[in-house]
This record gives sequence, structure tokens and C-alpha cells, in this order.
Amino acid sequence: MNEKGFQDYYPHELSYCYGCGRLNEEGLKLKSYWDGEETVAIFDPRPYHIAVPGYVYGGLLASIIDCHGTGTAAAATYRAEGREMGTEPPLRFVTASLHVEFIRPTPLGVTLEIRGIVKEIKGHKVVVSATVSAGGEICAKGEVVAVKMPEHMMPRSGMP
Amino acid sequence: MNEKGFQDYYPHELSYCYGCGRLNEEGLKLKSYWDGEETVAIFDPRPYHIAVPGYVYGGLLASIIDCHGTGTAAAATYRAEGREMGTEPPLRFVTASLHVEFIRPTPLGVTLEIRGIVKEIKGHKVVVSATVSAGGEICAKGEVVAVKMPEHMMPRSGMP
Repeated sequence: MNEKGFQDYYPHELSYCYGCGRLNEEGLKLKSYWDGEETVAIFDPRPYHIAVPGYVYGGLLASIIDCHGTGTAAAATYRAEGREMGTEPPLRFVTASLHVEFIRPTPLGVTLEIRGIVKEIKGHKVVVSATVSAGGEICAKGEVVAVKMPEHMMPRSGMP
Repeated sequence: MNEKGFQDYYPHELSYCYGCGRLNEEGLKLKSYWDGEETVAIFDPRPYHIAVPGYVYGGLLASIIDCHGTGTAAAATYRAEGREMGTEPPLRFVTASLHVEFIRPTPLGVTLEIRGIVKEIKGHKVVVSATVSAGGEICAKGEVVAVKMPEHMMPRSGMP
């Protein structure tokens, strides 16, 4: 997947997210894409993203579900409005709630696939369900309720 | 708080958690303590734990709620069994589900206080509710359903 991810279209000043901002040097830089009606992201946990030795940290799984959810919310809203991603005004979502069920321990050292499905788009709110799989087995399921970023959270300048 | 946190009593081989393991050099090293019937942890997000500039990343909040929840589950079970923390056999919990409501944007650069309340202890399952506050205002609420770590997740050696 060499095309631009959803998060690559976020405006400069909204691209410092630790989970998916392309400008956060310390961050996870998750990138999400369309795959038909679903969205997909691929992520390789770092060796230190440990829960107990051999297994991935749950908070990391929650984080990538969160960012895949808000990215999917933005992409789905552009699509619903018949707009190209990145056109003005920018669409950026934040998380109102996040729910994660840990189905089985997630092996460390295996590439993870995160898949999202848009369950609802209604005004400023988008509900996205997601799965995280390792080696074809679903290890975690989640749901993200994303809402359009409130105006007062918008940074005034381009730098954090 | 100079006393040992709950997580300091985890056995060596179960102390590599990215969120709270004392032996994970890259990790967050969250430490949780009793405060009467509640549990408390203090955490300073790092400057790069950004959602959008000025605000804390939601996945980080989910992570500290998660680790405070499983730590509280372990401490509460020791207490319920009338045992000192750290006595054998070790009690270590993993997360079955995690729910987080983001109430308001969490300011970056402010020390966070995480508080936990045990809602239920029943066999292998402990339910913990938690809040994250900044400057006395609750920014996020969460619930962790923690279960005793299954035997097959136990590391065989002391190293990850």
C-alpha cells in the first residue's frame, strides 16, 4: 500500500497525534486505507509493546483501534459528502468513547491487521467497529464513537 | 508516595508490561496505590503524548486506565483474600474488556490523577471503574473488566 493513508490528508497542525500523526516523531504513525466498504491498517508493534513476554500490550491495541476509528470516521464522512479527502474544510474526528474486548492474547512479533466497518454516520457522529487480527485470527474487537473535533480544540498555529 | 506501588510486587517475569512494568525501560511505568477504599495513580504524560497540540492522546489515557485497572484488581484480590501483596502464589490480572468515555479534552502539561474503585470481585473476575482528572476536573472515565491471567500466558523464563 503505497498510496496515502487517511491520516496523510490531515492538515499539518492536526498531524501530531501520537497514534497516527505523520509529524509525531515518537509516535506510532498508524495509516488507514479503504478496502472496498471496509477500512484497513497494518501495524507492527515494537518489541517493547509487551503485556507479558510474548504478547502485545492491550493499551497499544486500544490505541490503534482508536486512531483507525477516528481515521475511518473522517474518510467515511468525506465519502458520504461526495468530497475528496483533504479538501477544505478539513474533517477531523476525536473519540467520544472507546470500547475494546480482548478476545485472545495477541502474539508479539506478528504483523497486525486492523479492520474497520462504519456502523453509523449521523451528523457530527460516526460509529466504527473494528477488529485486530494476528495471523488471520481475531485477537481484539472494538468500537469507536467518533465526533467532529470541537472548534475550541483546533490549534491556532501550526506547531504543538 | 515513596512506598511500593502495586506493580512493584509483580514477579520479575510479569513486570515487562509497557504500561506499568518496572522492567520495561521504554514503558510508562505507571504505579498504583491504595487511598482508603480507592486506588490512585499519578502520571505525567510525555510531551509527545499528543492528540492535537495542547491535549493528551486518548490511547494514552486508555492505557493508564487499563494498567490502573488490572493493578487495582490484583491489589483488591490480595486484600479480599487477607493476603499481603507479593505473597505466593502471585496474583496477576489481564484485561478482558476496557471502556473509556472521553468527557473533555485532557490538557497536556498537567499531572494526571487516576482513581479506581472496585465495583465487583467475583472469582477470577474483578470490575474496576476509573476516572482520570487534570487539575481537579475529570477528563475521562473508564471501566476495566480484569480476569486472572490464564496459566498458558505465564512466561516460562524470567525474560521476554
